[in-house]
Amino acid sequence: MPSISNRGGHMPPSPIRKLVPFADAAKKRGTKVYHLNIGQPDIETPKAILDAVRHTDMTVLEYSPSAGFDSYRKKLVTYYKRNDIDVTTGNIIVTTGGSEAILFAIMTCMDPGDEIIIPEPFYANYNGFAITSGVKVVPIPSGIETGFALPPIEDFEKAVTPRTKAIMICNPNNPTGYLYSAAELNTLKEICLKHDLFLLSDEAYREFCYDGRKHISALSLPGMENHAILLDTISKRYSACGGRIGAFVTRNQQVLDAAMKFAQARLSPPSFAQILGEAAVDLPADYFDGIHAEYNARRDLLVKRLTAMDGVVCPTPGGAFYAIAQLPVDNAEKFCQWLLESFSHNGATVMMAPAAGFYATPGKGRQEVRLAYVLNTDAINGAMDCLEAAIKEYNSQTKG
Amino acid sequence: MPSISNRGGHMPPSPIRKLVPFADAAKKRGTKVYHLNIGQPDIETPKAILDAVRHTDMTVLEYSPSAGFDSYRKKLVTYYKRNDIDVTTGNIIVTTGGSEAILFAIMTCMDPGDEIIIPEPFYANYNGFAITSGVKVVPIPSGIETGFALPPIEDFEKAVTPRTKAIMICNPNNPTGYLYSAAELNTLKEICLKHDLFLLSDEAYREFCYDGRKHISALSLPGMENHAILLDTISKRYSACGGRIGAFVTRNQQVLDAAMKFAQARLSPPSFAQILGEAAVDLPADYFDGIHAEYNARRDLLVKRLTAMDGVVCPTPGGAFYAIAQLPVDNAEKFCQWLLESFSHNGATVMMAPAAGFYATPGKGRQEVRLAYVLNTDAINGAMDCLEAAIKEYNSQTKG
Repeated sequence: MPSISNRGGHMPPSPIRKLVPFADAAKKRGTKVYHLNIGQPDIETPKAILDAVRHTDMTVLEYSPSAGFDSYRKKLVTYYKRNDIDVTTGNIIVTTGGSEAILFAIMTCMDPGDEIIIPEPFYANYNGFAITSGVKVVPIPSGIETGFALPPIEDFEKAVTPRTKAIMICNPNNPTGYLYSAAELNTLKEICLKHDLFLLSDEAYREFCYDGRKHISALSLPGMENHAILLDTISKRYSACGGRIGAFVTRNQQVLDAAMKFAQARLSPPSFAQILGEAAVDLPADYFDGIHAEYNARRDLLVKRLTAMDGVVCPTPGGAFYAIAQLPVDNAEKFCQWLLESFSHNGATVMMAPAAGFYATPGKGRQEVRLAYVLNTDAINGAMDCLEAAIKEYNSQTKG
Repeated sequence: MPSISNRGGHMPPSPIRKLVPFADAAKKRGTKVYHLNIGQPDIETPKAILDAVRHTDMTVLEYSPSAGFDSYRKKLVTYYKRNDIDVTTGNIIVTTGGSEAILFAIMTCMDPGDEIIIPEPFYANYNGFAITSGVKVVPIPSGIETGFALPPIEDFEKAVTPRTKAIMICNPNNPTGYLYSAAELNTLKEICLKHDLFLLSDEAYREFCYDGRKHISALSLPGMENHAILLDTISKRYSACGGRIGAFVTRNQQVLDAAMKFAQARLSPPSFAQILGEAAVDLPADYFDGIHAEYNARRDLLVKRLTAMDGVVCPTPGGAFYAIAQLPVDNAEKFCQWLLESFSHNGATVMMAPAAGFYATPGKGRQEVRLAYVLNTDAINGAMDCLEAAIKEYNSQTKG
């Protein structure tokens, strides 16, 4: 029997999906599971954009151009302009989800053995794309004690080697919810210009910023025209995760030309969800207001409930819809599995993502979990009731 | 300015799309262009399956499971059974087009530096996926003089090295239209078992077989359970190229487990077109009959017209909707560009794909073109009138 590849062997299984069989078993036993483990928003996809797909009058479901429909790219220019990102259709390649934008960026900018610096904890699938492409992730620590702020410039400087080709950030951040400030982005700019590095900026959660703060895109940093690559997706923005439409955006023409060849090799991004994405740019200007208010309320409640628990630390996230909490348990992974296997409170339990899977450094994040506040406030209260009771019961068992 | 990667530099531009600017210019001049250059079927997508998408009542466009919707995978089991391919849902990972199935197979089976043997000419994007993954394509020649039959077993034996991990075929073949016989598939089986190689079988054109011949899937070869990987797509089958739905199918559990990790890293295949694909399995049993008859008529006409021209060689293709023709011109690429730049006949010209782009060996296929018979018989007659006149005019100019 022929053997699989080393890279196939080394690919990490999804740390988020590892606990799914335990959740399934809990549900089979009749236990309600509060899903705070995955970034699948519960917010309805706007009916108007689903209707755009429903009302399509196409007769042949043709390939779109490899860079995406021209009409959609034109709409995206409008969308970006509204967000202070000044680009042309020629700067945009429509991708199959944000995932493909990440893969195109890594493939286009880096060869096997090259290094990419990423503040940890980070979106776990970056590891998968790095292994796919033979690129080495060099993590630098951002910790719960600083609320997951950008690591100091010295940490970046220490991590740079002759093989370093890029820095990657997710802003606002998944899994920490951290929103980078103008000063932090300028620090990144300084390092990228000094060492001639690409800045790969995953801005999937651009719309989700709280406390009146504004998101700053890597593409709006002057002087970074040849260094900044924006990796985008409509998944979270419009609750359209299943559409699989994202975008790869840069002003660097060499990068665009090379990325287009990867885009041509896979022929085209999905047509239906491009129609949806195009309609989304015409949603009313106040579309995000209600969603903002809802997520803001959820975030406030979640952080309030968590920090009220003995021994729980949870920095207030500035963006996205995630928070990382440090729990007073010996091992968050064990605890999360125990929650699904052996615990219930009022017939319910809670599913969270153990944060160790988001760190590249072994042993880090051992007591931390990531919570996605993609449930309404009643459900968050229910989940927090479970968690509070669970911590006590778990510790009395493990310490008793 | 940071430099792009070597692999980004080495990625081949699409040989099919290279002539597009010349075609656009011809259209601007008012010249009608018969597009025989690209495998975009003109056949309408069945209304019933577009309607399945139009009538969807979802409220949240959620991620599907990474392996695809269970309901769709169940339908696919039915579809494959009808085609003498006996698999379970667990053998199937739904992919984003056939393209992603190809990439998953290469990534899962091969490491950088490993070799894959492919009879040439072959689908040009295989080169792109090989460069993406650092894998070396080892071409072995199949020629127009044998009608593009499978190369003799000795040619495979000579090409096998310690780094060889797989053989890849496209059956029926793009670009040659060749349909492999049971004897040829048994030859491939023999080599794969002897040298412990994977057989990657791209069967995008399964439904398109002529002269009453039956397609034989690599997955129905007994003894190849751990060696055969089927790469599939609904693009051509149902004229659904823009849906971007394919499938990666194998009975090798190690391969499935590893491929699933690549599938998880990109989260999920597009939801809308899975709904379309699911509805397609319920199309009436006679759905393909009319389509067969139509393509058969087109093929017969195309080959008749081509072989009636002085100095043109065109083996009759047994499947798919492509033919390769050898033309009495010095350089088919130059000729194809000239057709678009400098020629018209009754206000029209014809666009074809120069076949050199489908060969890995430099200099091969210099006089050959690939023709996709994705236009109706009237248009094919129009295109052939153009081609016949063009060959004469081109040769009188270049020789005169």
